[in-house]
Amino acid sequence: MPPRTLHSVVPTRLRLLPHAQCVSRSSVLGRIARRQSTQSKPASTQSHKPEIPIPPPGWIPPRRPPVEASFPKVRVALGVVVIGYAIYVFAFENPQKPVQADSPTLAARDELTKRESGITQNSPMRLRMEQFVKANQKQIVKAIEELDGKQFLVDEWARSTGGGGISCVLQDGNVFEKAGVNVSVVYGKLPRPAIQRMRADHKALDPDVESLDYFAAGLSIVMHPKNPLAPTVHLNYRYFETANEDGSSNAWWFGGGSDLTPCYLFDEDAIQFHKGLKEACEKHDKSYYPRFKKWCDDYFFNTHRGERRGIGGIFFDDLDEGENDQEQLFAFVKDCLGSFLPAYLPIMQRRKDLPYTEQEKEWQQIRRGRYVEFNLVHDRGTSFGLASPNARVESILMSLPLTARWQYMHLPPKGSREERMLDVLRSPREWI
Amino acid sequence: MPPRTLHSVVPTRLRLLPHAQCVSRSSVLGRIARRQSTQSKPASTQSHKPEIPIPPPGWIPPRRPPVEASFPKVRVALGVVVIGYAIYVFAFENPQKPVQADSPTLAARDELTKRESGITQNSPMRLRMEQFVKANQKQIVKAIEELDGKQFLVDEWARSTGGGGISCVLQDGNVFEKAGVNVSVVYGKLPRPAIQRMRADHKALDPDVESLDYFAAGLSIVMHPKNPLAPTVHLNYRYFETANEDGSSNAWWFGGGSDLTPCYLFDEDAIQFHKGLKEACEKHDKSYYPRFKKWCDDYFFNTHRGERRGIGGIFFDDLDEGENDQEQLFAFVKDCLGSFLPAYLPIMQRRKDLPYTEQEKEWQQIRRGRYVEFNLVHDRGTSFGLASPNARVESILMSLPLTARWQYMHLPPKGSREERMLDVLRSPREWI
Repeated sequence: MPPRTLHSVVPTRLRLLPHAQCVSRSSVLGRIARRQSTQSKPASTQSHKPEIPIPPPGWIPPRRPPVEASFPKVRVALGVVVIGYAIYVFAFENPQKPVQADSPTLAARDELTKRESGITQNSPMRLRMEQFVKANQKQIVKAIEELDGKQFLVDEWARSTGGGGISCVLQDGNVFEKAGVNVSVVYGKLPRPAIQRMRADHKALDPDVESLDYFAAGLSIVMHPKNPLAPTVHLNYRYFETANEDGSSNAWWFGGGSDLTPCYLFDEDAIQFHKGLKEACEKHDKSYYPRFKKWCDDYFFNTHRGERRGIGGIFFDDLDEGENDQEQLFAFVKDCLGSFLPAYLPIMQRRKDLPYTEQEKEWQQIRRGRYVEFNLVHDRGTSFGLASPNARVESILMSLPLTARWQYMHLPPKGSREERMLDVLRSPREWI
Repeated sequence: MPPRTLHSVVPTRLRLLPHAQCVSRSSVLGRIARRQSTQSKPASTQSHKPEIPIPPPGWIPPRRPPVEASFPKVRVALGVVVIGYAIYVFAFENPQKPVQADSPTLAARDELTKRESGITQNSPMRLRMEQFVKANQKQIVKAIEELDGKQFLVDEWARSTGGGGISCVLQDGNVFEKAGVNVSVVYGKLPRPAIQRMRADHKALDPDVESLDYFAAGLSIVMHPKNPLAPTVHLNYRYFETANEDGSSNAWWFGGGSDLTPCYLFDEDAIQFHKGLKEACEKHDKSYYPRFKKWCDDYFFNTHRGERRGIGGIFFDDLDEGENDQEQLFAFVKDCLGSFLPAYLPIMQRRKDLPYTEQEKEWQQIRRGRYVEFNLVHDRGTSFGLASPNARVESILMSLPLTARWQYMHLPPKGSREERMLDVLRSPREWI
């Protein structure tokens, strides 16, 4: 089957994955009408398989194999930053409890608004954010296809509880080993315990309701170039909202960021990448860049190695009315995302065709291994996504490189460029 | 520096790793004498780095970056099964609290016993287990070197709190991509909360003491062959004990098992591997093989993929006086470990030189990726090991293959051998 590009397409191609709830677009639209009749049917659970969630600190394994342990009912995973925004959202799903909707759901209302009025400046932020991330996905996919010369594979998928996603993956291209550009838009029900925990950060949440409709939309990107002199990049911007019974907005916040992971350090690239983000930040608040740069250095940290994943960028979460008004924060996120292509494309143009040695390729593969370690061991979104039943695993793990290497006791020679890279990963720099 | 083999050696070669507490053998022996004077010095902590442990289910990220979060003080990780027994043991360490020893420690007493009387049939199980796993490490390293034609690299390391390990790694050999044979012997203090949790499985533990000396010793093996038609193997056997104030044994138990991970299924190999384990089990109890085979299938399960890591073997934990007496269980573990080389060597002899295609190698690399996923996402020992400060990361991650691959949406063709392999990973078989 030939790859289909996002900006030239429309008919949805769907592949049914094991453990992914994929339904066709027509069935998504049909779902709203059928909701009442299907709502008593619980989401499918893998009844033949024991669920073994990742144990919390202090956990002791059961005396007997944990085949009878049931999956924790409610999982909360705010503030995640990896590719596959789905992750963020699967975490809120409760596969054991079917949704009990007495009035039209938030998803149904938004679907109706889109059909009747389209999306304008006056539409709810949910619809504007969805439109924004989808438009940016198209633009970025197009730019990366032009750079690479190979087209993305496009998978569109939907969730039975509302929303869905578009996963665009370019694999084994001319420039990129693997590049993923994902959009997820998800509607769901947030149960009471999750609401109560989230109140710590968002006082607008009503602690006295049994559940709240929620919405989440985001764009996630990870790109791993082939050339070891060209840097891997990650980006994720997301919007989260809960709704009152009448569909009006309750609590909301933005999160996201972008960071660069070179294998060999070119100060010029690091400065250009950080400069783009700093400029985007400074249009809005002088404090943003230093705050969010530090947050990024702290988050993307392979604690067990004592190394950052890369040379950072920015990372922020939970930006709500306590930080600024919604329009201002949306404008901030737009500027951040807007700085991505103008910074990353010239870096890639400079690096993609540089000659490299086998030794440099091997170091890249070792650094890829560390990338895998961060994403599988430390990244909260990946952990929660993978622990959630019915997660779309292929979208979550799209962030992993095509190839990686673990070499016992690899230590770069004293004074080498590899050691210089490690030094910066151990002690983050100020680039501007 | 030429590699040094374990069975031809002795002078200890030490490499100081970042985040590993390595001290020389002479300083281990010296440590006992110096203990009183050094005991008030806390173990080094990575004060410049934020500790971000893996969040438990239901966890919500902090509103601000978690740089100020302190590392959870007590971590318990019984029942772990991966390579690098150190993992098992680091989990009990409490880097914030120096050991308060009023009388000679268990480690000091054992050191004295070894020097004065040697190890006999009447020695404490601790010393017998240590002797047993070290002897087996030598034997297995020798057999694998003969098979491969390349020698293992030997790293001996010690922990400042007592004990240490010997990591033997063969990398990029003729037959093996990577093979690790690790011994760990560790002494430490088990704090009150850990004791109280462990009482659920081990009633002999006194719940009224503030801390207990503990001992753990184990042998861990992971071997990844180059040839995609030859299977990866994993083995781990371990003994755990707590001590009363007078040094007498308090609670104790054995754990372990061994499992095979082929990329292509040869029924002959699966049957031979399981047969060896079944025979070892049946010398002791008819119920062992079916119980421990199922436990293995349930544990080595990539829940997010709905696939087992491999075709299983046996896995057990917490085998104490409730199961059988100590001598009987030690004899059982000896027989299990004894069945390893007689089963794995002939399998490797049959497969190591078979011709293979590039496509078969690629499938192997994808399966290696799944191995990495299990070890980094689901394996309890790896998770706790990596979350523990001062863990010897290189010994823990020795279990990872030299190379791995993540290919988006890889689906083997209908009716292919790759699909047949997946079928068995999804629905474990009875091999005998």
